[in-house]
Amino acid sequence: MRIAIDIMGGDHAPGEIMAGALQAAAKWPEHHLILVGREEALPVFLPANCSFHRADQIMAMDESVENLRQKKDSSIWQATQLVKDNQADALLSAGSTAAQMATAVLLLGRIPGVSRPAIGSVAPGFPAERVILDIGANTECTPQMLLQFARMGRVLSQVLLKRENPRVALLSNGEEAHKGNELIRASYTLLAESDVNFIGNMEGRDLFSGDFDVLVFDGFTGNIAVKSAEGAVALIMSLIKDEFTASFLRKLGAFIVKPGLKKIKDQLDYQEHGGAPLLGVKGISIVCHGSSHARAIINSVGKAITCMEANFISHLTEAMKVKT
Amino acid sequence: MRIAIDIMGGDHAPGEIMAGALQAAAKWPEHHLILVGREEALPVFLPANCSFHRADQIMAMDESVENLRQKKDSSIWQATQLVKDNQADALLSAGSTAAQMATAVLLLGRIPGVSRPAIGSVAPGFPAERVILDIGANTECTPQMLLQFARMGRVLSQVLLKRENPRVALLSNGEEAHKGNELIRASYTLLAESDVNFIGNMEGRDLFSGDFDVLVFDGFTGNIAVKSAEGAVALIMSLIKDEFTASFLRKLGAFIVKPGLKKIKDQLDYQEHGGAPLLGVKGISIVCHGSSHARAIINSVGKAITCMEANFISHLTEAMKVKT
Repeated sequence: MRIAIDIMGGDHAPGEIMAGALQAAAKWPEHHLILVGREEALPVFLPANCSFHRADQIMAMDESVENLRQKKDSSIWQATQLVKDNQADALLSAGSTAAQMATAVLLLGRIPGVSRPAIGSVAPGFPAERVILDIGANTECTPQMLLQFARMGRVLSQVLLKRENPRVALLSNGEEAHKGNELIRASYTLLAESDVNFIGNMEGRDLFSGDFDVLVFDGFTGNIAVKSAEGAVALIMSLIKDEFTASFLRKLGAFIVKPGLKKIKDQLDYQEHGGAPLLGVKGISIVCHGSSHARAIINSVGKAITCMEANFISHLTEAMKVKT
Repeated sequence: MRIAIDIMGGDHAPGEIMAGALQAAAKWPEHHLILVGREEALPVFLPANCSFHRADQIMAMDESVENLRQKKDSSIWQATQLVKDNQADALLSAGSTAAQMATAVLLLGRIPGVSRPAIGSVAPGFPAERVILDIGANTECTPQMLLQFARMGRVLSQVLLKRENPRVALLSNGEEAHKGNELIRASYTLLAESDVNFIGNMEGRDLFSGDFDVLVFDGFTGNIAVKSAEGAVALIMSLIKDEFTASFLRKLGAFIVKPGLKKIKDQLDYQEHGGAPLLGVKGISIVCHGSSHARAIINSVGKAITCMEANFISHLTEAMKVKT
């Protein structure tokens, strides 16, 4: 398989992206990596299963997607173009998600039956990982869109997490069917009558511990939920740091429990989970977290390989043929 | 001052509510508490500054507010009636929030300029406590309603947290003015042009650590944000418990750092913060958390006293006279 990597995208590009790409190349010698970006970002020697594709422009993280058409020589455009031209089987980027999404829609096109592509995340969970979506840019959604997200999330759960008949839930402000805003109440009815294995509503507190496989929400609500949870985790970790260094004795206790704390941190760390494919476009485009370090890039390459080997796009295309 | 306490409302009623009421009576001998509920919930002797008002019906936590008119002898109805009849200066309840809100609107009426009452919470925060609203039942909001919430939250921040010129923010999926769903984008414009000291958008991760005094959101989004954060906190605490008891040595380390962990838990505990007044009705009705224990009730009585002494309702009425 051939994977195009946007080495210019991300908060820690190109250094960490290159480091991750080189380690991935060593880990999967049977696959070929195409490094897309500026020549000066390359190391002196490239491994045998890596090649370089030049792209001199850069789409900045916060740059308006309206500039895209003037940026056809950007790393994200060129990496996507390689997939379109069948010179690569997948691409991955930690750059601007909006630009990655827009480029994929423009160059690869939408899968029939998909109104708007979505971003599904494989989130940490207890007892098991789960798919949550849309964590992307769809701030205004219709019930029909949430049903499409549910179907796409189901395929993602099957392919990446090997769940046989994924249980799908909606994120709401209460478990009962009458809870929610207008969008959620209408979506509840639609999902209950659909082909999806719908198990009802989940609440914010269930995000990482609820008993479901796929959690569906609009992009605005999902952003609020995920960032509120992330904020709470960061706050507690910082409070723990303050408290555990408050005295010499505490430092000793903290030293003893440190491996336990590190394990918790690792379990909650998105770097371990890598990126997730953009859902709804005709090609594999893996969206990585903007602050991805090398480890996240390696795991994202692994995700791309899994998606390719499982014929992800065919399954997705098939799933979206269902009439509603 | 006379404070009516619904002793039948809440997950731990009547035991914990009574325990809290009796301790509050001892703490504030200069105030009078009216215990509203069933006679069998009372202790054998009542302190001198407590009296009993009988109410034999109960509104269950999940009971539809449509039943309210058949429940005029319920503890929440009777407690609110006491305020309406000027036999009490304030009431507090840990029972069904929807019933408390509906009773307040029916019996006390709305303050002019308020479309829908809201519930503001005094939330833990670092470095300082903050007001967040609406954590109530208003799942569908208009920009005009969010502006009203902002004005009411400002008064709450001034009265309970002594902030002079509270800085008001909107909860959105990004800091920039163009971020948000339709509601938030329209509200951004409205707040920016209003009398409110509007400082822009905050994200979910800023809930407890952002630099603002009042954070405004619709009830649906607020529920998702708060419960996602609470869920993350509960998850980490449970992971810590597992990890810190994984071996004898770890247990020793955990024993040493335990006071630090307890301090963090207390800082994040809503029991410390007590209830908050229902915003927008003509009377002081303090909404307590459903799972309030005695400590939360004592703190809520304290909040009621602060509100009465600060002429909260007059300030609120004045604040809502502003033309928009």
